[in-house]
Amino acid sequence: MATSIPIEEVLAAFPFLREAPPEVRRALAREGRAVRLEPGRFICMEGDRCPGLALITAGTARVYKTGESGREITLYRIEPGESCILTATCILGEEPFPAFAVTETPVEAVLIPASVFRRWVEQVAGWREYVFRLMARRLGDVIAVVEEVTFRRLDARLATYLLQALPPEGEAVLHRTHEAIATDLGSAREVVSRLLKDFEHAGAVRLARGAVYVLDVDALREVARRDGRG
Amino acid sequence: MATSIPIEEVLAAFPFLREAPPEVRRALAREGRAVRLEPGRFICMEGDRCPGLALITAGTARVYKTGESGREITLYRIEPGESCILTATCILGEEPFPAFAVTETPVEAVLIPASVFRRWVEQVAGWREYVFRLMARRLGDVIAVVEEVTFRRLDARLATYLLQALPPEGEAVLHRTHEAIATDLGSAREVVSRLLKDFEHAGAVRLARGAVYVLDVDALREVARRDGRG
Repeated sequence: MATSIPIEEVLAAFPFLREAPPEVRRALAREGRAVRLEPGRFICMEGDRCPGLALITAGTARVYKTGESGREITLYRIEPGESCILTATCILGEEPFPAFAVTETPVEAVLIPASVFRRWVEQVAGWREYVFRLMARRLGDVIAVVEEVTFRRLDARLATYLLQALPPEGEAVLHRTHEAIATDLGSAREVVSRLLKDFEHAGAVRLARGAVYVLDVDALREVARRDGRG
Repeated sequence: MATSIPIEEVLAAFPFLREAPPEVRRALAREGRAVRLEPGRFICMEGDRCPGLALITAGTARVYKTGESGREITLYRIEPGESCILTATCILGEEPFPAFAVTETPVEAVLIPASVFRRWVEQVAGWREYVFRLMARRLGDVIAVVEEVTFRRLDARLATYLLQALPPEGEAVLHRTHEAIATDLGSAREVVSRLLKDFEHAGAVRLARGAVYVLDVDALREVARRDGRG
């Protein structure tokens, strides 16, 4: 569903484009393509050679790996103002990328053809800096996942996950299935369900269908501090 | 120990510099600094803001993370013709980097000041491409580590590791301590020693002081195929 480019929304999400030379904004309007993706649509598939770069103006996408057993682990999420840096490395590094990116909510984005993206990297200092900074951040995110998975116990990771996912205000409830939580943590649903039941027996949470109510934040913080797995 | 730049060695390890404008080679000769590092010297420390970039012409360095317990996991190695892309992301992304890089063998390198590195990224297309390509590869390497640690059993990873580390010719022996192997795999020495003893009982390897002799490659390949950990 291509529509005309919501140029003000793009400039709001990617402020450095305001300072880019006028021809960059003209190229954006002429060669970009506005798209709206439903949740669950793939942006990048493992092994893809990507034809362009998506600049996300609304919604979130999830980047993940799958194991042979079909289990998944989330590497990071793409938010408004970001783009699929996997695609950028695809285009610039000329390597197919070993991961998946899928929309989680309705996503609005502007697609930039690979040739335009490459030209901007050469010609627009602010764009180049944006791309390098995003790549550096993603490398840091993925290194943090290595650290989590290698050195931290799953119960501590699950407690940290619940604490981080809580809304900052209102009821302390997380509307997410055990399956979705397991997928973010790279574990199996049964393992996560068992740990959540342990948390429930300890009075730290209450489990309901598709929801986890956090009853005792301090108890979860205590679990989150358990470190090292031997 | 700074000495004059071995310009021919640098050009041999980084062939795209041959096609760079003459002022790049002049900047290399004028502002680069040849260094020779003993094994075990730190190139990057966690949290560093890096003053320059090392172009490695000989030797290898190891990039790793440590957990709170002091255990380590190797993210990737830096070989001749490569540079510490952590440092590059430090410089370009303006983020301190969450890892360590340490020399494993004697390393020869040319240090480029951050300001020269940044200028080259702006002005030299071949250099920019080199940096992007290396970043893309590293992101791929680190994603592969996530996949390994999350989805593969440690016995399968250890078998794969032994097979990959074997010299292509000559005696099938790996001169490496159990500690060093555990560090590469992000595990504890005792766990790796126990698995190696299992392999020895099965007749796949013979253990000696600081060395693992591989007796049965097919048996190790069989173990390497065990996948998924529940």
